[in-house]
Amino acid sequence: MFSDRLERARTQLQTKGIDALLVGPSADLRYLVGYEALPLERLTLLIVPAEGVPQLVTPELEIARAQDSGATRFVELRPWGETEDPIAIVRDVLGGPGTFAVQDRLWSSFTLQLQDAVEGSTWVPGTQVMRELRIIKTPEERELLREVGAAIDRVHAQVAALLRPGRREREAGRDIAELIREDHDEVNFVIVGSGPNGASPHHETGDRILEEGDAVVVDIGGTRQGYCSDCTRNYVVGHPPEGYDELHNVLEAAQAAAVQAVAPGVTAESIDAAARDVITEAGYGERFIHRTGHGIGVEEHEEPWIVAGNDLELRDGMAFSIEPGIYVPDRYGARIEDIVLVTSGGVENLNNRPRGFVVAG
Amino acid sequence: MFSDRLERARTQLQTKGIDALLVGPSADLRYLVGYEALPLERLTLLIVPAEGVPQLVTPELEIARAQDSGATRFVELRPWGETEDPIAIVRDVLGGPGTFAVQDRLWSSFTLQLQDAVEGSTWVPGTQVMRELRIIKTPEERELLREVGAAIDRVHAQVAALLRPGRREREAGRDIAELIREDHDEVNFVIVGSGPNGASPHHETGDRILEEGDAVVVDIGGTRQGYCSDCTRNYVVGHPPEGYDELHNVLEAAQAAAVQAVAPGVTAESIDAAARDVITEAGYGERFIHRTGHGIGVEEHEEPWIVAGNDLELRDGMAFSIEPGIYVPDRYGARIEDIVLVTSGGVENLNNRPRGFVVAG
Repeated sequence: MFSDRLERARTQLQTKGIDALLVGPSADLRYLVGYEALPLERLTLLIVPAEGVPQLVTPELEIARAQDSGATRFVELRPWGETEDPIAIVRDVLGGPGTFAVQDRLWSSFTLQLQDAVEGSTWVPGTQVMRELRIIKTPEERELLREVGAAIDRVHAQVAALLRPGRREREAGRDIAELIREDHDEVNFVIVGSGPNGASPHHETGDRILEEGDAVVVDIGGTRQGYCSDCTRNYVVGHPPEGYDELHNVLEAAQAAAVQAVAPGVTAESIDAAARDVITEAGYGERFIHRTGHGIGVEEHEEPWIVAGNDLELRDGMAFSIEPGIYVPDRYGARIEDIVLVTSGGVENLNNRPRGFVVAG
Repeated sequence: MFSDRLERARTQLQTKGIDALLVGPSADLRYLVGYEALPLERLTLLIVPAEGVPQLVTPELEIARAQDSGATRFVELRPWGETEDPIAIVRDVLGGPGTFAVQDRLWSSFTLQLQDAVEGSTWVPGTQVMRELRIIKTPEERELLREVGAAIDRVHAQVAALLRPGRREREAGRDIAELIREDHDEVNFVIVGSGPNGASPHHETGDRILEEGDAVVVDIGGTRQGYCSDCTRNYVVGHPPEGYDELHNVLEAAQAAAVQAVAPGVTAESIDAAARDVITEAGYGERFIHRTGHGIGVEEHEEPWIVAGNDLELRDGMAFSIEPGIYVPDRYGARIEDIVLVTSGGVENLNNRPRGFVVAG
């Protein structure tokens, strides 16, 4: 798998006339060679040249960790000791000025040092190499996304019982995290936005106590075998607040319209528009304050971005969220989110819990 | 406090002829304006110009979070919507080519886009501005480091009881994390390296079961009121393994020698040498495989680096770890770590548990 990915990276480099790809600790490093390196002040850098064997510049202290990851089957190690300069080692590996792609999240301190050390070079964003690899999921990746999608569905099936009146968001959130952990390797995030807190899309959990008549947004995700889940459903404690029923109906229609619009050849922005048009027509347009979705895979947010202005054409194998939301400040919010996979025939939904709000408590 | 820090940053900019400092989500952002921003694909960027009001470029979705942090008392918000280009906003704020300092951990994707957008500029590492601010702790910071040092000491006082034979490292580690959480806001790391695992300085915890005669390295740290603790002590289960007693005596002498060497005007590398010389003379030189220490403050690893080749002169108010170690592959390791503060009179130790190994189990 990793040899294949490295080969595809080399093909991208050759096609685009880039001499090497430089990758620090990141999802791309995991993706390319399976090494989960720690982001440290001591530089770890994978150098994938357009031709030849990838080199992994590694602090000596991290050699054992690099070896345990299995990455050393695909790379040559270039260890550096505590008093050596790793930038000089990278410069030697690069062998002179050229065009180099820098992984998106490499710390700028390293990039600026490299720019200084290999003067006269051209530096381009690493996504020029990685986008094409990561945006199309292989059959194995699709299967892993299906599995992690089913895992988060099983969590949502147990959430209603946890949202009892009198409990704090934080307590419910802790229980949900436990449920995620049972079937994921890692909990990525838990949002329990009750009442007015649901109107802040990025509210996590707080001290607010759940009450009868609260609407609650529950947006949760984890990582399982290296791939991420992300799914949002809405709950009401006892009964829905005033006006919520109608709002949620609009949201369901908008989310369904966007899912139905997914097919190869359709643009990312048209999926955003499909959801937004329904919400706007119903008079809630100003309350849908974010993009419709984001890609997902080894990271919880990655390309493609499902947003106005992105005319990228969808292709078989892309995976992303469809998550329109409607937010009424000081009262409540609602968001419905599924991960979908573009297939040759149209779309496959990786989250399959009912989309109506669930009565809890 | 934050106005003072911003003022000092401006002074650095003016002194060094830098037009502005650009800071993304990072410890520096927390340090300068108290805002703990999430590192997202949506750009958050603080721009501190050499003259004038700092600007905070913020995704609209993050405005509430930025406001809740209190940062808006010191900065002007430059919000950007989901379909806007934040790089264009930064370019407008910068107002043309110049010399700009980029915070060390800003994602390279943003730096490369900025370099493209404001062509003809000079880009320098942000540490040129931040180093001088962060490396000297103010009286308030010293007090916070004292408090968090005492907090981790209280945890070490309870560790021996947790290292019973038959328990796994992971179980002991989980209990230690609970203890850290009681008196810190966050657990940063828990290392429980038993027997041969202790010989890997970066081993965290594993499935290994503690046995009679194990030596165990316990290196732990957390964050409390924004400042970090980091302290290592050694334990033995029941009784020490063969040869360990002598090795630990050497290590104690080395660590004490380095602490005693600390004073204003002394170089960082001479502190490393003070510990290393003792270990080398005793014949363990090749088994001390890392630098002697690292600075600490709002980050667990920051400047100054206590390492051969660093001729930085210590000054009143610097805080760093002194943590020599001796590692015997396949058998055991030992490391003693205290955080020390350089004072006008010499040195103040912020960790004060006895340094001999502790019999546990």
